[in-house]
Amino acid sequence: MTHRPFFPLPSGLTIGEIATLTGAVPRNAASLDRVITGIASLERARPSDIVFIDNAKYLEQLAGSRAGACLISEKFEQYAAATMPTLRTPKPYHDFVMVARKLFPESLCPVSQFDGEAIGAGAIVHPSAEIEDGVTVDPGAVIGPHASIGSGTVIGVNAMIGPGVQIGRDSSVGSGSSITHALIGDNVIIHPGCRIGQDGFRYHAGAQGHVKVPQVGRVIIQDRVEIGAGTAIDRGGMGDTLIGEGTKIDNLVQIGHNCMIGRHCIIVSQCGLSGSVTLGDYVVLGGQVGVADHITIGEGAMVAAKSGVIGNIPAGEKWLGYPAMPGRSYLRAFASSRTRPK
Amino acid sequence: MTHRPFFPLPSGLTIGEIATLTGAVPRNAASLDRVITGIASLERARPSDIVFIDNAKYLEQLAGSRAGACLISEKFEQYAAATMPTLRTPKPYHDFVMVARKLFPESLCPVSQFDGEAIGAGAIVHPSAEIEDGVTVDPGAVIGPHASIGSGTVIGVNAMIGPGVQIGRDSSVGSGSSITHALIGDNVIIHPGCRIGQDGFRYHAGAQGHVKVPQVGRVIIQDRVEIGAGTAIDRGGMGDTLIGEGTKIDNLVQIGHNCMIGRHCIIVSQCGLSGSVTLGDYVVLGGQVGVADHITIGEGAMVAAKSGVIGNIPAGEKWLGYPAMPGRSYLRAFASSRTRPK
Amino acid sequence: MTHRPFFPLPSGLTIGEIATLTGAVPRNAASLDRVITGIASLERARPSDIVFIDNAKYLEQLAGSRAGACLISEKFEQYAAATMPTLRTPKPYHDFVMVARKLFPESLCPVSQFDGEAIGAGAIVHPSAEIEDGVTVDPGAVIGPHASIGSGTVIGVNAMIGPGVQIGRDSSVGSGSSITHALIGDNVIIHPGCRIGQDGFRYHAGAQGHVKVPQVGRVIIQDRVEIGAGTAIDRGGMGDTLIGEGTKIDNLVQIGHNCMIGRHCIIVSQCGLSGSVTLGDYVVLGGQVGVADHITIGEGAMVAAKSGVIGNIPAGEKWLGYPAMPGRSYLRAFASSRTRPK
Repeated sequence: MTHRPFFPLPSGLTIGEIATLTGAVPRNAASLDRVITGIASLERARPSDIVFIDNAKYLEQLAGSRAGACLISEKFEQYAAATMPTLRTPKPYHDFVMVARKLFPESLCPVSQFDGEAIGAGAIVHPSAEIEDGVTVDPGAVIGPHASIGSGTVIGVNAMIGPGVQIGRDSSVGSGSSITHALIGDNVIIHPGCRIGQDGFRYHAGAQGHVKVPQVGRVIIQDRVEIGAGTAIDRGGMGDTLIGEGTKIDNLVQIGHNCMIGRHCIIVSQCGLSGSVTLGDYVVLGGQVGVADHITIGEGAMVAAKSGVIGNIPAGEKWLGYPAMPGRSYLRAFASSRTRPK
Repeated sequence: MTHRPFFPLPSGLTIGEIATLTGAVPRNAASLDRVITGIASLERARPSDIVFIDNAKYLEQLAGSRAGACLISEKFEQYAAATMPTLRTPKPYHDFVMVARKLFPESLCPVSQFDGEAIGAGAIVHPSAEIEDGVTVDPGAVIGPHASIGSGTVIGVNAMIGPGVQIGRDSSVGSGSSITHALIGDNVIIHPGCRIGQDGFRYHAGAQGHVKVPQVGRVIIQDRVEIGAGTAIDRGGMGDTLIGEGTKIDNLVQIGHNCMIGRHCIIVSQCGLSGSVTLGDYVVLGGQVGVADHITIGEGAMVAAKSGVIGNIPAGEKWLGYPAMPGRSYLRAFASSRTRPK
Repeated sequence: MTHRPFFPLPSGLTIGEIATLTGAVPRNAASLDRVITGIASLERARPSDIVFIDNAKYLEQLAGSRAGACLISEKFEQYAAATMPTLRTPKPYHDFVMVARKLFPESLCPVSQFDGEAIGAGAIVHPSAEIEDGVTVDPGAVIGPHASIGSGTVIGVNAMIGPGVQIGRDSSVGSGSSITHALIGDNVIIHPGCRIGQDGFRYHAGAQGHVKVPQVGRVIIQDRVEIGAGTAIDRGGMGDTLIGEGTKIDNLVQIGHNCMIGRHCIIVSQCGLSGSVTLGDYVVLGGQVGVADHITIGEGAMVAAKSGVIGNIPAGEKWLGYPAMPGRSYLRAFASSRTRPK
């Protein structure tokens, strides 16, 4: 068996093009036509790869790197070998991400896992569903009655879109995910195995055991949200469960009914939000955080990994522990989103 | 795209019918014929909605509510506007739940996500499977050899029922769930993406690495159990894993092999029960609780969210922390099942 | 409905054959031809079952057991009834596992959940996929372009194997699992509902919100790895995510991008590993452990359940708590893999 790459080999960018794209300044005009086709860490880079450095602890790796280009801050440029084509910039990692996105556009949103046909083999689309031109329904996916799906959206293998669900344009639903009782925006990424729209967990104690309380709300997911594999989002009981624009949710997260999640939040893997939790915009929850029901966490607040939140958190504060309290230690345990790639 | 409601619009109940259903006493005979078709919170209610109030902190919202009816305790009735049709009752929330269940009967158990045909398009039923009349197998579902499924049960889109699995009547299996080595009762709700019946996690240290220990038991799920999305229940090693009647399990919970869960327990999201854990009846575990193997938790005991239980808990006690110990604080973090809807 | 057993009834082993298999010494030659067809705990055993005892606290159960054979250490043999056919051995549990594996070979690796056909009904295999003879693709499974699957491997009902994915021989992929961007070895068991190969959780803060960082690496899973139901393993960002040979991962575990997991590790249910975590060989993580990004845990180290690891752990140490520190208490909460079966 021969290994085939999982992404198309990039056609590449010259160092000159990278300079234009990022505004970084090449040290040596002689290398402007060199073509970069990949990204890598300093120690693993080959001459066709671009790297970056923004931290003194990697200077030793810089010295030995075979990379074909390096985005670098001014103060480190002197440490690069004279033969190393450097691009000077005040924001090396930011520029590196820009280059990576340009080299690998297919990596920015999941694509068809089969042949990319409008309706793949074995897919079942209800005649009443409204499927715009340019939708891809992968094999085995099922689209229910009156569902509507916008152009450019990909429904993954064996995924299920329930009755009346609306999904906007240029979104993707991962393999095996199930979505019911939901309205979903544009440019949303839902990874494989997500469970969106099922009943919230609400019972009323009765003489014969727990009595199920009707859950007749919805899930609203705004534009540019990303939802990790295996994450569960329950629909609202009476109102809706809302995920605000641009919020990113990691794998295996639980979002209870009636949660109101703000815009541009970061919720790391295995967090659990009980019912009716409210997060302001730009809230960050580290991994495995639990939040009790009806808690409000203010805009820009950060909660360290594994904390248990049982009181409201004011905007902008950093809390940690169980019960969570204000604090600045453990910052290492905060969201992985700020860490360097490898 | 026009939004279509996810539940049929209720035909509604008059205030007189609600009084009969609940025993609540209408303050004003003039409104007995008013028709209620929805449920809502005080602040969002429209004149066609019924609301309830049982807590003084919502009295201000009561004053401004546009609700068409309000289930209310006697002491609060004086605060309702004279124009508000009130129904006096000692148990406003209980009665509200009864009304909601009557208005939205379709919400009480998941239904077909397609056309409700006996065997949906693309569903595959083994010829040796015993499917009673009145079963719905949604598109893409697969029913294995010698499985048997009782009348009124709905098997969701792309779900898998393994060989020899028995499922009783009026149950439902959610989209994408897989069930093997299991016997399941009547009126059981299994939400999407559940994993029931796979091997437990048991190895024996050997010279060449971990040796897999055969897991030849079953999963037994009794009547009226509800299992949340993405929850995993391993089958027994030699004996069985048992989920007792009426127990409710939330999303993304892990139940290890040979657990014996009593009747009417509440297990909140992301709890993890190791192997051979025993829960008595009416045990409540808050979210993200972990229980070590071979632990016994007595009838009616409650464990606060995020606790780690490494010793047996006597019946009726409230424990919390890690290691969990008796205590009464953090009660806010207990199961969300007692909270008010929103 | 008649219950059918979920495993074929073993043809059985005589006590003489068990003695030969294990090296255990039968006390009584008269029973050498007795046939054992099952395994059980002391208290539930019938005369056709074999049991074991290696702990004084079960001596009372031994006295009353109806088992047909008992693997027993020398010091306990005197407590067995004279009529009990015993097999003396210094390693009763080890020998019991050997017998169980011989009696129930079908339990050692998941098999087809349907008829075991090469390509089951409704399965969809891309014409460019390379499927060796002896592969079983269960109904509804989808195999993408250029995927390759080795002989003896079973792809479960409604599973999805993405483009270019390679899976070796005698492996199994559980129902509803989805695998992309991955290379998988021989004798690997992937239980139902796993999510392998999706994007890691990596964003860069931008003026318009979080910018997705391309994730163009792979997941490499070596031989004899077992992965529990519902577990998620993200692909590498630039390099790969690696799961070393013989490592066993329980249900609902999260493995972030670029993790390097050694050989023969044990990772219990609901653990969460952030990005770029490195585990040496034979590391054990108890349930619900969280590990911060870029942490290294040395060979043979053990971390107690529910710990939060935010610093590197040297080889061979036992750590616990949050933040995790060296310690020896709570050992009860360690991996369930060492516990006795029931």
